[in-house]
Amino acid sequence: MSDSHSPTAPGRPPARPLPGIFRIGVLGRGTVGSAFAELVLEHADRIERITGLRPEISGVLSRSSGNFEEILAGSDLIVELIGGIEPARSHVLDAMRAGRHVVTANKQLLSQFGDELFAVAGESGVQLRFEGAVAGVVPVVRVLQESLAGARIERVHGIVNGTTNFILSEMARLGITFEQALVEAQRLGYAEADPTDDVDGRDAAAKMAILARLAFGAPVSLDQVRYEGIRQITPDDMEYARELGLGLKLIGTAERIGEALSVRVHPAFLYPGHPLASVGGPFNAVTVESEAITEITMSGPGAGGPQTATAVLGDVVSAMIPPASPPEAMVEMPIVSDVISSFYLHLEVADEPGVLALIAQVLAAHGVSVRSFMQKGFSEQARLVMVTHAVLESRFFAATQEIAALEPVRRPPRAIRVIDEEF
Amino acid sequence: MSDSHSPTAPGRPPARPLPGIFRIGVLGRGTVGSAFAELVLEHADRIERITGLRPEISGVLSRSSGNFEEILAGSDLIVELIGGIEPARSHVLDAMRAGRHVVTANKQLLSQFGDELFAVAGESGVQLRFEGAVAGVVPVVRVLQESLAGARIERVHGIVNGTTNFILSEMARLGITFEQALVEAQRLGYAEADPTDDVDGRDAAAKMAILARLAFGAPVSLDQVRYEGIRQITPDDMEYARELGLGLKLIGTAERIGEALSVRVHPAFLYPGHPLASVGGPFNAVTVESEAITEITMSGPGAGGPQTATAVLGDVVSAMIPPASPPEAMVEMPIVSDVISSFYLHLEVADEPGVLALIAQVLAAHGVSVRSFMQKGFSEQARLVMVTHAVLESRFFAATQEIAALEPVRRPPRAIRVIDEEF
Repeated sequence: MSDSHSPTAPGRPPARPLPGIFRIGVLGRGTVGSAFAELVLEHADRIERITGLRPEISGVLSRSSGNFEEILAGSDLIVELIGGIEPARSHVLDAMRAGRHVVTANKQLLSQFGDELFAVAGESGVQLRFEGAVAGVVPVVRVLQESLAGARIERVHGIVNGTTNFILSEMARLGITFEQALVEAQRLGYAEADPTDDVDGRDAAAKMAILARLAFGAPVSLDQVRYEGIRQITPDDMEYARELGLGLKLIGTAERIGEALSVRVHPAFLYPGHPLASVGGPFNAVTVESEAITEITMSGPGAGGPQTATAVLGDVVSAMIPPASPPEAMVEMPIVSDVISSFYLHLEVADEPGVLALIAQVLAAHGVSVRSFMQKGFSEQARLVMVTHAVLESRFFAATQEIAALEPVRRPPRAIRVIDEEF
Repeated sequence: MSDSHSPTAPGRPPARPLPGIFRIGVLGRGTVGSAFAELVLEHADRIERITGLRPEISGVLSRSSGNFEEILAGSDLIVELIGGIEPARSHVLDAMRAGRHVVTANKQLLSQFGDELFAVAGESGVQLRFEGAVAGVVPVVRVLQESLAGARIERVHGIVNGTTNFILSEMARLGITFEQALVEAQRLGYAEADPTDDVDGRDAAAKMAILARLAFGAPVSLDQVRYEGIRQITPDDMEYARELGLGLKLIGTAERIGEALSVRVHPAFLYPGHPLASVGGPFNAVTVESEAITEITMSGPGAGGPQTATAVLGDVVSAMIPPASPPEAMVEMPIVSDVISSFYLHLEVADEPGVLALIAQVLAAHGVSVRSFMQKGFSEQARLVMVTHAVLESRFFAATQEIAALEPVRRPPRAIRVIDEEF
């Protein structure tokens, strides 16, 4: 078969050799791939009732066996589960150019090469579906693309990384350190041997880039997402915050700010009323806000093999009901870097007269006003713990930089964002 | 136009007089209808980018103006917002037989005439969409139909009536009676002047019939759903239950029991860990359980005008991207009436020796075992409050009937179901 590389051959897959059969070529043979193959067998009857076609795995490509060109030629749709950039990117592009729909759960690929992938899907008139790439089977992609097509979305908040949510839940529950909770997460299979991408926020950033693209119809890629992880979180911050009624999550945010966007990932404290506050353990959840709908929240288990495989199969079934929804034309939107936030601020200070007044003065000079405040310990152990009202981040950080240089402040200030209903 | 009544003229709407325009005929001119018309105007550009067609309201039928036949002839799709059975049913059937897609938010119609409506949609090759009929903009219909097409669903739990959820939330928050909370709900517009359908559970039952049909692909209608309302709930039950760590909701359940189904609505206590426990005020939420996905939860505002209109517009946009997903063939499943549940049991008893032993004996004789237990008050005010382990409802009610007849029991026992992780 040679048409698979021809950009001038969009349109439909070749005529099916077996009428009534829908042939699925699978790239990658891992946990998700095996779970997917099992689900296809288990649900073939039901899917035939829904779509009129019987799904069949027509070929599987692994590192050691199978030939991509042959699998492509013998498939009506390609499921990409290789992960990473290459060869996944080339295979996905080749498949779409050959007129095949593609279903993938590859967040790296989508968050870094989204523009190219969506452009080729549009030119080739095929569907590119990726529910499994964000929040496992929690149907956030479908909801943003379809249910909310008639809503102007203002903001998306998400807990989109199960590893960090598990670690923070364990730290809060047991009062243990980040390192202790990480070991526990690894023991239970919630964290990988190299947890860097998860705990540094990069995995969540990739998912937020994908969600921002869907929510705002704007081209957003991973390199435009500012992210921080959770390594620096200490048990005493979590303890003090609990006294203030706050719980900590790693939160991804994508929001409109005027005619621009902000997309970011950072640890944030939530007040108990927030719909994401009760999402514990390895769960994922996403909240979508819009004036017309106020707010909807979706939650469920994060990406495990069976969950991702179920999301992939849901996409396959949707793609079996042709034709494609053409991707929406993209509108460029500038990215904002300085946004408004409330902050939790933890200071270790010398317990001497006038310290509080000094600090309050610096905060006021930068327009930072204090919402709640606690003093803990005394003499060598004195700590000031406070939550501010919402303020531009640049102002807050200018204030803390100045505070860090004050003589009675004995350690670098620790600041964590707080999400509440104020703004 | 005469083809609108012809059952032998399925297929496509007439050729569009204006290429690039998608004509929407609206039946009904109420809050939702006005909000819908505004949303169409506001989002016409965006929808044109998504679908390639520009949506336009081509006609509106109200009690006093407009002609159904003319509106049908001049529309590519009919939005039915009249509510109730007739004339909504005839218009929807006529529209589908004339080859028009139909979007409706009419839960009465779908829960009572679902078999007929889905059969005609299938024969006519048109889409019948109804996201707005259940849980407003919370995308439970789409998720059950599409995202979870590859999952075998075991159970759906829902808070699908915002009025009763608001009333129960207020009773819990303020310790007030049902009647007081109802007045407050009416004042705030969360309850209608005649709240019967809501507070007696019939509205929730209609929605659960619709969800059961989607989740299990079985024909379920309102008359097969057992329902109870919340009029009988007292503040002291809620107070005692809170001491046991329980919160009360009006819960709809649709679940597989072997090869049969149970669909029911009743007040139920939830332990704090349950994903529906934190859903307060007029919000709706639905949890879907399946082995492969474990559990996903969706929540958001219940049906208000703007929310329902947004759901309706999401359906319209999906229908503009042809063609229809043919409705899944239905599989008949028997309905189970006797199911397993835990119970909260409240007894007013004479405070005399041997009473507890007597009651415990009756419970044990019927196979009811007690999980937690409190004695409150003494002498004339003595109350026994307990939560049982899960047991067949028929056994529990046999036990309470016998207990009611015991001499030291001074009032009819009060029982409320408890939902937990036990079963």
